[in-house]
Amino acid sequence: MSAMPTPLPVIQCCAPLGTPHLSDDEADELERVFKALADRHRVKILNRLLAAGGEAVCVCDFEDMLGLKQSTTSYHLKQLLEAGIIDREPSGKFAYYTVAPGALQRVGELLRP
Amino acid sequence: MSAMPTPLPVIQCCAPLGTPHLSDDEADELERVFKALADRHRVKILNRLLAAGGEAVCVCDFEDMLGLKQSTTSYHLKQLLEAGIIDREPSGKFAYYTVAPGALQRVGELLRP
Repeated sequence: MSAMPTPLPVIQCCAPLGTPHLSDDEADELERVFKALADRHRVKILNRLLAAGGEAVCVCDFEDMLGLKQSTTSYHLKQLLEAGIIDREPSGKFAYYTVAPGALQRVGELLRP
Repeated sequence: MSAMPTPLPVIQCCAPLGTPHLSDDEADELERVFKALADRHRVKILNRLLAAGGEAVCVCDFEDMLGLKQSTTSYHLKQLLEAGIIDREPSGKFAYYTVAPGALQRVGELLRP
């Protein structure tokens, strides 16, 4: 996976699942978007962000909530960032996260038949 | 994974991602649904089924399309079946598949903030 280029964020990428004759590359892109969501910790991160109603959440809050090491928490945040599902804003000692505007709606649109 | 009970199909399971205070079990359920979609071969299976516009597709067609062994193709179909995203109907020598009615819309609803 390390040789793979950084994927396009979901807002810019991806033919919908119902596209006639989806190519192999398009199937790979969809796999990457769905993989970003397909983890219980990342699901909990998104749930926490949605509960914050648009307010930015500190990385330190995720470490406490998930009970994971800092490096593991960062790994999960990176997966969501690279998929364009969340945004990151450094501020002082910490980084703060929000759900990227329209990102979850966009994933929903990719599923529309 | 083999000790895990068969998950509920997506039509019956899962608190949406935006549920206040998602439990660990609810996060696990969402992980399972998203994991079912998070594979390029399963994406191509769904694309083929959507292209068929509701007509059932023979398992033999997927083997040809994916270029995978029968056992690997069956594995991918089983992941989608267990998630309730597709339905299976045996007929004569083969099994035939369709997208489960409302399943993809339901996944989309789980993502709604």
